Amino acid sequence: MKHVMSTAADGVSLGRVLEAIRPVDPESASRAAARAAGLAVPAGSLGRMLDLGVRLAAIQQTLLPVFPRKAVVTAAGDHGVVRRGVSAFPAEVTPQMVANFVRGRAAVNALAGVAGARVVVVDAGVAADLRPLLGACIRADLAGVLEHGGVLDRKVRWGTGDLSRGPAMSREEAVRALDAGVEVVAGLTADGLDLVGTGDMGIGNTTPSSALACVFTGREAGEVTGRGTGIDDRSLARKRLVVEQALAVNRPECTDPVGALAGVGGLEIGVIAGVILGGAAAGIPVVVDGFISTAGALVACALAPEARGYLIASHRSLEPGHRVMLDHLGLEPLLDLDLRLGEGTGAALAMPLVDGAAALLREMATFDEAGVTEAHGSGEGE
Amino acid sequence: MKHVMSTAADGVSLGRVLEAIRPVDPESASRAAARAAGLAVPAGSLGRMLDLGVRLAAIQQTLLPVFPRKAVVTAAGDHGVVRRGVSAFPAEVTPQMVANFVRGRAAVNALAGVAGARVVVVDAGVAADLRPLLGACIRADLAGVLEHGGVLDRKVRWGTGDLSRGPAMSREEAVRALDAGVEVVAGLTADGLDLVGTGDMGIGNTTPSSALACVFTGREAGEVTGRGTGIDDRSLARKRLVVEQALAVNRPECTDPVGALAGVGGLEIGVIAGVILGGAAAGIPVVVDGFISTAGALVACALAPEARGYLIASHRSLEPGHRVMLDHLGLEPLLDLDLRLGEGTGAALAMPLVDGAAALLREMATFDEAGVTEAHGSGEGE
Repeated sequence: MKHVMSTAADGVSLGRVLEAIRPVDPESASRAAARAAGLAVPAGSLGRMLDLGVRLAAIQQTLLPVFPRKAVVTAAGDHGVVRRGVSAFPAEVTPQMVANFVRGRAAVNALAGVAGARVVVVDAGVAADLRPLLGACIRADLAGVLEHGGVLDRKVRWGTGDLSRGPAMSREEAVRALDAGVEVVAGLTADGLDLVGTGDMGIGNTTPSSALACVFTGREAGEVTGRGTGIDDRSLARKRLVVEQALAVNRPECTDPVGALAGVGGLEIGVIAGVILGGAAAGIPVVVDGFISTAGALVACALAPEARGYLIASHRSLEPGHRVMLDHLGLEPLLDLDLRLGEGTGAALAMPLVDGAAALLREMATFDEAGVTEAHGSGEGE
Repeated sequence: MKHVMSTAADGVSLGRVLEAIRPVDPESASRAAARAAGLAVPAGSLGRMLDLGVRLAAIQQTLLPVFPRKAVVTAAGDHGVVRRGVSAFPAEVTPQMVANFVRGRAAVNALAGVAGARVVVVDAGVAADLRPLLGACIRADLAGVLEHGGVLDRKVRWGTGDLSRGPAMSREEAVRALDAGVEVVAGLTADGLDLVGTGDMGIGNTTPSSALACVFTGREAGEVTGRGTGIDDRSLARKRLVVEQALAVNRPECTDPVGALAGVGGLEIGVIAGVILGGAAAGIPVVVDGFISTAGALVACALAPEARGYLIASHRSLEPGHRVMLDHLGLEPLLDLDLRLGEGTGAALAMPLVDGAAALLREMATFDEAGVTEAHGSGEGE
């Protein structure tokens, strides 16, 4: 196993959470697999649903997994690299969309509503003063957000630096972003949480996500850099060059995940990685959204390889690098609906499938219980 | 357009329902598409979800589609062809599983519970007396089922005949099965219904489904006949031969869907086709389960091509013929989770995605409403 750099100076919460992450429970997994094998259906006919059920049992350490209390944490941040022309949208859209989340009118709100999940919006580093847009809805504490809504102020800085010219942020800022994610999950867990999803908002954030994909999967920029919100060929060529420059200037290493996040990452990506680590430490499954969230998962799993067992990949993004990331993590997404929005929309859409997988294990009868005859070896002729 | 045979003698309910099916509303579709295009997300970033939303708007004839009242209709029937050794399970499993549905302990019950759908079990032609298993839970009227649970007795006959030796059922019996499906949806609609899913139970029913796939898609038995609940190579070869024999003996024609159902179909497949026709006539979207339900959809759409607009394909089954059927109907399934169980499990799993698509249209703000800046033509360089 590679040596992962994470020094004592890398933050108190982060240090504690990395120590707290345990492998998912193999004993619960094998008991759940045995029960799944006896359920009154033809072997394998529930496809990937029972595999998911067994993983959920292993994570929750029970034969009867259940997830009534759900949240999607949507982290927002801006990106200095936007000035290089890597996005079809201007940076002003980030705070506008944060306001839309807070008003409950965005896609993630609609889909989280169907899933029965609350949406917790975190300002990790929006490059604007949100007060003119949101006023008293900006809150310093999670308890206030949970009671009254609004956005949790964990602004580490006003957007990252241009990662093609230097580091996106300092190492200390990267740790603060990670810590913020860890602390949000700790606060949600104290309030009651069974399932958490990740989400992002940040104009330009497919660029740092592509750079992180290069760092952790070893692929070239050309293989993992896509059109994001919809750029043309010329902008795509420029974006690939920007990713290459970011790697050349910052020289990030997969053995130093905090350094890689600082060099070529993003503030909301740091919060997402923190949410994943916090979920894993609390023994809660984390439903990972699309391309940006999976970049966060790369950072989190580089810091704590055991966190991978807590991850559920919600969907496969249209962004070409997403498949590369998921393959690297060994995750198979549940949905493939040509989404490429982020916000946590894929995570919210996948949550009812998680509920379904858990319900199958909890509620179905076995062949014995149902008095159903099992298959003979094969069909017999007349 | 082909002339479809359906004479006055083909049943009163069926005749009425075929006349009642109208194309989905193009006016609602174009208004919904216009609204979808203005929603505050990058163009196309919600992938297939907004396409689904627009279809739902067209079906429900509203800009604000909503589906609070849901049901999965699971029809059961037996198959004389089972004596030819085409299934890994014996026919006695059909009534055993019906009892499991009625007790609420099957996979479809668990997943329908997550979707907020009730499960309505219909005995279309189980080849057993259900009374020893279910006693007073066998009901003659839908109102009793809706109030107290149990199985609706619409047993047309005790299983079909062996379709490789002669017709599976008479034409009159096929119409009675279709009528039963139509009437169940009419009864549910009178009680309040916004979304209906189809489901099946019947040991041996992938064989008639494969035969119907041949009839309506024009493919060979070898292309559409698979392993069902899990038969070995030798049984699969026999099953393909049985399908070929069924086609040779009964000579079903795609221009006579009732005759094809009678010749090489199944009683539960007839009820499923009736549910689809009844849903389309009532202007309700029908979530089609897997391979067997899609065979029912082939029959329904051959009788009433406009019914196709009301169909939502829930998932792609592992059964190889399913893709052929879906392509023929021009349907793209929402899920691909290696399911091959039936019961209505895929339909129930897809229902939260239907709710999600509707919620996106109903609840999201447009760029104008949210005050979010739209994309410029492309990213601009420094």
